[in-house]
Amino acid sequence: MKNPKVALGIGDDCAVLRLPPGHETLVTTDFSLEGVHFRRDWQSPECIGHRCLARGLSDIAAMGGIPVAAFLSLAVPTALPQRWVDRFLSGLLRLARANGVELAGGDTAQSPGGVLADIMVVGTARHRRALLRAGAKAGDLIYVTGELGESAAALRLLRSGKIKKRDVFPKPRIVIGEWLASQRIATSVIDISDGLSTDLSHICEESGVGAVVEAEAIPISVNARKLSQTKRRKSTPCDFSLELALHGGEDYELLFTAPRSKRVPELIAGVKITHIGEIVREKRMYLVQDGKRSGLAPQGWEHFQSHRAMK
Amino acid sequence: MKNPKVALGIGDDCAVLRLPPGHETLVTTDFSLEGVHFRRDWQSPECIGHRCLARGLSDIAAMGGIPVAAFLSLAVPTALPQRWVDRFLSGLLRLARANGVELAGGDTAQSPGGVLADIMVVGTARHRRALLRAGAKAGDLIYVTGELGESAAALRLLRSGKIKKRDVFPKPRIVIGEWLASQRIATSVIDISDGLSTDLSHICEESGVGAVVEAEAIPISVNARKLSQTKRRKSTPCDFSLELALHGGEDYELLFTAPRSKRVPELIAGVKITHIGEIVREKRMYLVQDGKRSGLAPQGWEHFQSHRAMK
Repeated sequence: MKNPKVALGIGDDCAVLRLPPGHETLVTTDFSLEGVHFRRDWQSPECIGHRCLARGLSDIAAMGGIPVAAFLSLAVPTALPQRWVDRFLSGLLRLARANGVELAGGDTAQSPGGVLADIMVVGTARHRRALLRAGAKAGDLIYVTGELGESAAALRLLRSGKIKKRDVFPKPRIVIGEWLASQRIATSVIDISDGLSTDLSHICEESGVGAVVEAEAIPISVNARKLSQTKRRKSTPCDFSLELALHGGEDYELLFTAPRSKRVPELIAGVKITHIGEIVREKRMYLVQDGKRSGLAPQGWEHFQSHRAMK
Repeated sequence: MKNPKVALGIGDDCAVLRLPPGHETLVTTDFSLEGVHFRRDWQSPECIGHRCLARGLSDIAAMGGIPVAAFLSLAVPTALPQRWVDRFLSGLLRLARANGVELAGGDTAQSPGGVLADIMVVGTARHRRALLRAGAKAGDLIYVTGELGESAAALRLLRSGKIKKRDVFPKPRIVIGEWLASQRIATSVIDISDGLSTDLSHICEESGVGAVVEAEAIPISVNARKLSQTKRRKSTPCDFSLELALHGGEDYELLFTAPRSKRVPELIAGVKITHIGEIVREKRMYLVQDGKRSGLAPQGWEHFQSHRAMK
């Protein structure tokens, strides 16, 4: 994918980007490490490549930005078949093309162990229009795009050995982020990479506020719902599918707040937008379930936990 | 180090940079992997941190750019003492401060094995003034900054077991790159990261030309020269210190070409500039030594070779 803003891509000491005037430059970088963020026996190379880039694109979406170029540092063990790398790149490049992003550089090396990828994405946002985590105010309503828990449900099934492989291809919400920035509706935005409870706590911390979330309102993905039905009640005091949606990570949906006075559509770019709660003055997070209010602690997916889990 | 061009650093989904109008954006990314690019028992954490950032800054220098912000993805094994990470960062940040660069973001993870770092540096160059590898013309003279072979000499001594530790702190030639861009003297520039012979071959390939290098003119570092004196003649048909300077990597000096008509100073920013050869029409590289001309093949440091060497 050739992006006209990329004046010089792979092949010199640096890539050269010509970014539009009146814009700010957005930069994000994310690791995808074998055994930490993915396992080769659990996902196809195309899916791993897709998810590698999706992590970076989702960060650009959460700022209301437009992605321009991606840079991939990739280290692979000598024994890895070239076919695996080709398929990994094919998955990554397909998502890049779909978002007008050019792979404009990176680095390659031999890996001392496992596939090691680091993706960097550069994007732009109109001057002072980037959407931040700080800015949510008491009384603002909390919204989420799409459905939650799909990646966590897959991970749970893979870890239990019930399934051998599962590809989940999250769609970074670039168009929704752009729309929110252009309409100046959102007071704060974050992408759900570490789990709703953890990412909402980031908004609360950065904005100096608290939040009340309605359990029944949270949009739960099909497979997370299915998992709940098959899970025995005994070991799950609270609803298991809700847990996946609340604390499961890697959904790459957007979580945002907007003043109650602003009309937020039910669909943006064909994606369902769900009102799940409200920002409050008290600097704590609460979950309301069956009419009862209890404290909501950030228990999101963490790399270290996942690392143990993936071994 | 707070850089005024960094509007938003670590802590949101992306960093936000406000780059000056009339400029292009430069981006470079480089791995520093334990066992591939460094060994913890050979170098201090400060030196490893310094060299991690130096690799990126040197790429910006080779484009004639001004570095703005760095982004560090760092994965470390759980058993690694926090003190090591602190010292690594201290070495990296000292070099950042010295170059007006802010560490504006990155990613952290647990490593599945060894310390894994990926540095990304964003810089700027005036519109259409970035210095490229392509552009050298037959008749241009070839210049190199500083001295060559110091990192290769250290590596050789470490591998032989003659020394246990050796810190080499290369200085990225930012000011020289800036000067070359502002004076519009250079027709092509590259940084010497893979070795003079390999990096010169990149200039030749990109420019569609060849080169003749004068062996006697190559500035050889003190420790590379010393090594030659202690090396037995038998196993080294040609001068050993010259080999280190010609093919040793990680010197991070600049290699550039300029028309014969342009006056290139003997010192730029206090650093010696040496005329080492000439660009020729024939698309081959030659070395002239003791009045004899022989073919010069790119035999520079490669990651895969080094990987084997470091094990």
